[in-house]
Amino acid sequence: MKALRFSGSPAVQEIDVPEPGPGEALIHVRRAGICTTDLEIVSGYMGFAGTLGHEFVGDVTDVGAAADREWVGARVAGEINLGCANCERCLAGMSRHCERRTVLGILGKDGCFAEYVTLPVRNLHFVPDGLSDANAAFTEPLAAAYEILEQLRVEPNSRVAVLGDGKLGSLVALVLIHTGADVTLVGRHRNKLDRIAARGVRVALAGDHLAGGFDTVVEATGSADGFGRARSLLRPRGTMVLKSTYHGKLELDAAPLVIDEITVVGSRCGPFAPALRALQEGRIDPAPLIEDAYPLAEGLAALERAATPGVAKIQLLCES
Amino acid sequence: MKALRFSGSPAVQEIDVPEPGPGEALIHVRRAGICTTDLEIVSGYMGFAGTLGHEFVGDVTDVGAAADREWVGARVAGEINLGCANCERCLAGMSRHCERRTVLGILGKDGCFAEYVTLPVRNLHFVPDGLSDANAAFTEPLAAAYEILEQLRVEPNSRVAVLGDGKLGSLVALVLIHTGADVTLVGRHRNKLDRIAARGVRVALAGDHLAGGFDTVVEATGSADGFGRARSLLRPRGTMVLKSTYHGKLELDAAPLVIDEITVVGSRCGPFAPALRALQEGRIDPAPLIEDAYPLAEGLAALERAATPGVAKIQLLCES
Repeated sequence: MKALRFSGSPAVQEIDVPEPGPGEALIHVRRAGICTTDLEIVSGYMGFAGTLGHEFVGDVTDVGAAADREWVGARVAGEINLGCANCERCLAGMSRHCERRTVLGILGKDGCFAEYVTLPVRNLHFVPDGLSDANAAFTEPLAAAYEILEQLRVEPNSRVAVLGDGKLGSLVALVLIHTGADVTLVGRHRNKLDRIAARGVRVALAGDHLAGGFDTVVEATGSADGFGRARSLLRPRGTMVLKSTYHGKLELDAAPLVIDEITVVGSRCGPFAPALRALQEGRIDPAPLIEDAYPLAEGLAALERAATPGVAKIQLLCES
Repeated sequence: MKALRFSGSPAVQEIDVPEPGPGEALIHVRRAGICTTDLEIVSGYMGFAGTLGHEFVGDVTDVGAAADREWVGARVAGEINLGCANCERCLAGMSRHCERRTVLGILGKDGCFAEYVTLPVRNLHFVPDGLSDANAAFTEPLAAAYEILEQLRVEPNSRVAVLGDGKLGSLVALVLIHTGADVTLVGRHRNKLDRIAARGVRVALAGDHLAGGFDTVVEATGSADGFGRARSLLRPRGTMVLKSTYHGKLELDAAPLVIDEITVVGSRCGPFAPALRALQEGRIDPAPLIEDAYPLAEGLAALERAATPGVAKIQLLCES
């Protein structure tokens, strides 16, 4: 089968179809999405080698030993953290933080930029009929946006700023308007902002004057500068959500965080179920975030396009 | 009257007794406590000039215009932030974060290391009979410890580490054991730790091995190194409370905060009422934290003693 792999450099290679292990499903990938994390891996920052990719929708074609055969034939999305299922964290429902976890296409587990991928069936979610493959492939990043609401309460009468008009920042803004809050997406790309503004989110260019005193600011710029900008927009006792991971150190004055009693919340992967419900019911439509789709065989061109500034989501068509 | 003042260097000076302004009380100070913040001011880091001090107990001897005369004769402790009482924050109960605030002995307002001090009567709290002056002078720092419980829930079945066996760290540990949590105070001074251990707090020397995975870590070391140490002791999704302000920048990797979904909460001044209740009822007895007391006239020697490593609370006897 074809797979877009990384080992010092990215390449589309012919490799064997993987065997589903005990408890695993073999999934024929329909569509996959390229995420900024994939681009960071390709830049060599993450130390990963193997098949790239962690956002996908596909069909279960087989299962390994001890896995329920009822999954065969199902169209699914899959959670990307593979916990050990035995440790204290996994048993406490925190398998996304299992110390022995592997992570699809990111840490020790071949990803979904391939014709086939394997995942434990306990990681799978049925994709409802009527939801397009293109939209279903957004389940994973949309779940990451919902994670914010797992972690903190965004009050309906609050003002929220989301910094960064990339794919994740845009999804976060689309999720948070449903709380009733007054949400402003701040970014550098007029075309991206316009697409989100059409969905009812207030938008502002990064250089625009913005009245401060926000209750919550989500930092999704992917740049170390974002922290200071987010800080400056917060009211005392406000909350900053850190959504972006980036290479490099952050230098900051801790004293103003203490004096203004700021809360900073790191936020990563989230729950799939609310993401699938929102996609199914059309409450969130990620279609305006899709820039283009490439066949898997053109994976290198797809990666290059995805890394171009101002370009939104690039998807891969993985079916052979 | 005598006052311990700072203007480039500290000195005990003779100055006029202040006049209480509208809404203010004139307070004859009985006893005051020296805080690390006072030592930072004396080191020139805070840009403050005037009478030092913000922790005290005293007697109201007079009030200015428009202030209730029933306060005259009362023994009081006083909140240190003087909000404007008119802005949105003050009216929302956030006067401690008023943008136009002055702060007793810290920002634009003469402090309590003097025979007399003035404060708005709305800042005052009656000190119950039977509470010693020595213990009542701990109301302000104890309130700062209670601020943590205003900001977050410490679960009774959780593990908490408090880093820093200074005055604030010790008070935080004494407050947090009352949540039912398993609290460990980590410090560098065996004599200080022993005093707190006698109150039922688990203690550890900073060099000791400590099993990680704490649910909550309070950083009260007053040093930039504390952040990394606190981080390393937290479980994923744990909470770090930043209690210490210090001069200098903090350099950190934001990515691990995101990946482990850590919450960082800045925490400053707190509510006086629970602190006074805990002192009155003897639930918290700060007596073991008192190192020595000096007459106000010996204020310079008191400051020097307070700055000596390993020395706990130094108090000033301010009555003439």
